[in-house]
Amino acid sequence: MASKALAIIAGVGPGTGASIARRFAKSYSVVVLARNPDNYDPVVQEINSSGGQAIGISTDVSDSKSVNAAFDKIKAEYPSSKVAAAVFNPGGGFVVKPFLELKEEDYSYALKSQGQGAFNFAQRAIPLLLEARESSEHPPTLIFTGATASLKGSAKFAAFASGKFALRALAQSLAREFGPQGVHVSHTVIDGVIDIPRTKAWVFEHEDAKLSPDAIADSYWYLHTQPRTTFAFELDLRPYIEKW
Amino acid sequence: MASKALAIIAGVGPGTGASIARRFAKSYSVVVLARNPDNYDPVVQEINSSGGQAIGISTDVSDSKSVNAAFDKIKAEYPSSKVAAAVFNPGGGFVVKPFLELKEEDYSYALKSQGQGAFNFAQRAIPLLLEARESSEHPPTLIFTGATASLKGSAKFAAFASGKFALRALAQSLAREFGPQGVHVSHTVIDGVIDIPRTKAWVFEHEDAKLSPDAIADSYWYLHTQPRTTFAFELDLRPYIEKW
Amino acid sequence: MASKALAIIAGVGPGTGASIARRFAKSYSVVVLARNPDNYDPVVQEINSSGGQAIGISTDVSDSKSVNAAFDKIKAEYPSSKVAAAVFNPGGGFVVKPFLELKEEDYSYALKSQGQGAFNFAQRAIPLLLEARESSEHPPTLIFTGATASLKGSAKFAAFASGKFALRALAQSLAREFGPQGVHVSHTVIDGVIDIPRTKAWVFEHEDAKLSPDAIADSYWYLHTQPRTTFAFELDLRPYIEKW
Amino acid sequence: MASKALAIIAGVGPGTGASIARRFAKSYSVVVLARNPDNYDPVVQEINSSGGQAIGISTDVSDSKSVNAAFDKIKAEYPSSKVAAAVFNPGGGFVVKPFLELKEEDYSYALKSQGQGAFNFAQRAIPLLLEARESSEHPPTLIFTGATASLKGSAKFAAFASGKFALRALAQSLAREFGPQGVHVSHTVIDGVIDIPRTKAWVFEHEDAKLSPDAIADSYWYLHTQPRTTFAFELDLRPYIEKW
Repeated sequence: MASKALAIIAGVGPGTGASIARRFAKSYSVVVLARNPDNYDPVVQEINSSGGQAIGISTDVSDSKSVNAAFDKIKAEYPSSKVAAAVFNPGGGFVVKPFLELKEEDYSYALKSQGQGAFNFAQRAIPLLLEARESSEHPPTLIFTGATASLKGSAKFAAFASGKFALRALAQSLAREFGPQGVHVSHTVIDGVIDIPRTKAWVFEHEDAKLSPDAIADSYWYLHTQPRTTFAFELDLRPYIEKW
Repeated sequence: MASKALAIIAGVGPGTGASIARRFAKSYSVVVLARNPDNYDPVVQEINSSGGQAIGISTDVSDSKSVNAAFDKIKAEYPSSKVAAAVFNPGGGFVVKPFLELKEEDYSYALKSQGQGAFNFAQRAIPLLLEARESSEHPPTLIFTGATASLKGSAKFAAFASGKFALRALAQSLAREFGPQGVHVSHTVIDGVIDIPRTKAWVFEHEDAKLSPDAIADSYWYLHTQPRTTFAFELDLRPYIEKW
Repeated sequence: MASKALAIIAGVGPGTGASIARRFAKSYSVVVLARNPDNYDPVVQEINSSGGQAIGISTDVSDSKSVNAAFDKIKAEYPSSKVAAAVFNPGGGFVVKPFLELKEEDYSYALKSQGQGAFNFAQRAIPLLLEARESSEHPPTLIFTGATASLKGSAKFAAFASGKFALRALAQSLAREFGPQGVHVSHTVIDGVIDIPRTKAWVFEHEDAKLSPDAIADSYWYLHTQPRTTFAFELDLRPYIEKW
Repeated sequence: MASKALAIIAGVGPGTGASIARRFAKSYSVVVLARNPDNYDPVVQEINSSGGQAIGISTDVSDSKSVNAAFDKIKAEYPSSKVAAAVFNPGGGFVVKPFLELKEEDYSYALKSQGQGAFNFAQRAIPLLLEARESSEHPPTLIFTGATASLKGSAKFAAFASGKFALRALAQSLAREFGPQGVHVSHTVIDGVIDIPRTKAWVFEHEDAKLSPDAIADSYWYLHTQPRTTFAFELDLRPYIEKW
């Protein structure tokens, strides 16, 4: 099984990240990265106990040393596996505050966890994706998770929007550089509340008013399966009831 | 078979429209509309002879009388079928000329075939899509085909870009009005040369440099299958090698 | 005085158009176009009685014959004048209705008055602006007035947004074609309620909540005075209190 | 003279920043900030010797301590002056490299000098701008300088585009929060080569092919003079000959 291809997913908690891990685990060995093992342990166990293969590595994506250590460990664990997909999905830096109440750290942390984190992740993932071009069934794929704040800097969202705008800039730049080299780089815009444990108590007037993390994961898988003749770069996803 | 759901596809020639028809014919009865029957006859025959069900109706989408006649005929042919999907894909109005050489008709035809045509089509399709909400496996779906010129008005593209911008405005407005009513409205941005008979002779330096119409059709089908918790509005599709 | 340069302004009523006419009349002879002379007569008289020079010509911009007649009349009245600026500002096609209640004419009229009207106007204005390059103090300028609906197709705005999107496409295409030839083409996005007679009764919680037509006119004049080293294409204008 | 209003301009070298300083010095006392005094000394001397008033303060905007010290010094020098305008114009973080050759520091420096620097500057400037609302002739104004890379993440521009996207997000967020409070927040998109000493040797086929820093400065002044009924948020500026 060591030669099964890998999917590496950064930012895995009980929501979207776990759904993406489950979805990609149907075809690949999955490596999930998050700072706190409590966040990924359940999905790692679930995947392994249901016939899939997964490991988790405690990683702080905003710290290049931590990212390098994680990728070194991946190489050690799966010396002969190719990386078919990499997903950057951390939620760090979300803070909603009047601008003059933002701390310097609120802002710098949003830039670090979204922008710098994605940079650190991409610098290690892209060489592996390039190596996988020959052997992959689908073009090797790098997906970044964006949000409403990727397109609009709303009042009180200065920090998070700055991080998400930076992430989108990075994704565009990588798509334009590595798309022509055969790596599929995509960016999603998740525009709405996701139906995860943390939002269970949020009740809306209409049913189905929250994004399904499994449906988001299906979209990521769909992006991954596109042939290189027909790559999508950006996909916006929102509940049917969402105002936008 | 009369109760099989329908997909109605406007703008069917030997390229993308035919691929969409083939793809949706795997699950639905298909009605294809184009001005010239020569454009749709081959794919109608192909679908019918391979176990699917299809009819073609000669229609000028820019003429509301013609569109009304087509939908009346659909109702007569399939009195008890629900419409699960409708796709607006006509290519009319494409003209590349210095602005001062454009004829009044060049410009008005682009607005008519893209904007007014989509309006005519949507006014008849939406009531049918609304009726299908209860019975459809997937949310009833209305997809509009855009182009590079949907996002950028380049020099010499005044006419076509005006038509495609208008079409995108219509799509956005419908998505915002009918999304919350359970109809999935999407708009695609086809950014590149499509690999169809008309472009066979266009040779590029790299292989796979043209969009695959079958892959575009897969994307449309994917959009159609999204649950209402997780609708995409816009999807950009381009060959990996495309500059953008 | 026949050699004073001209500014031609289409779409002049008691609001923005009149303010633009007044502003440009400080430097140029002004020709104002509107369907109904009642709309431009007051500002024409006001300009002429306060030391400026203005004429009005009844014109339906959506009708190329009417536009051609107007420009022929301008040529006859001012045989030796150069055209330093042309502004397209008609408000036609504004209608807010649920999509299924829109009439075919509502939609086609929006496309005609915004898209086709701008096409008709630009085809006659651009050759005159090109002729004026040598003699103009400022680069000859063509400005199109957009709206919130130029950037966003909201629910119930299918018709107006389609017209305004088409207009913006045209403006972009012309800017890219004629900018390099020395004609400054711009597009404004007027995002909010303008303080005109028709909106006098609309009261907002905050003062200064409506756009000042004179301030809009100052912006147009500012755009006109930019040197060709430093052209702006798009300018968004809104009251400080506006949500966007 | 202590009661003359102030303009604070961060990022002043021999190009755009100096032109902005000169332009605002016609009406205000000017404080210019840059890391290296060599960059601002000439324009400070020029303004002071031609009847204006200017001081320079050596400041690293990416370091909040340095920014705080600069603003404390401004307060000490001008205890009774109001701040009518603040401009954030640093060019730091510009680097063009294939992504895999970018150093971690290249990327983090772009985020720091553009995003974090603007955050540091805005946190100190905005309270002063709010204080100036009553006494200012024009609404107090905060302008951020963007670039082509503010809207598009091109290949090899991952670092600079991430910084400039972050800056634009910050500007949007501040405009939406402080516009309704009477502070005019704007963002410019400088799309082209600026005609400064560093680019003197760059020769183009056409004359006037570079942006004039004085014309850019006029645009900033124009934005500053807009009344609160009619604020522009974003202004794109490019040479007539520029491809876009």
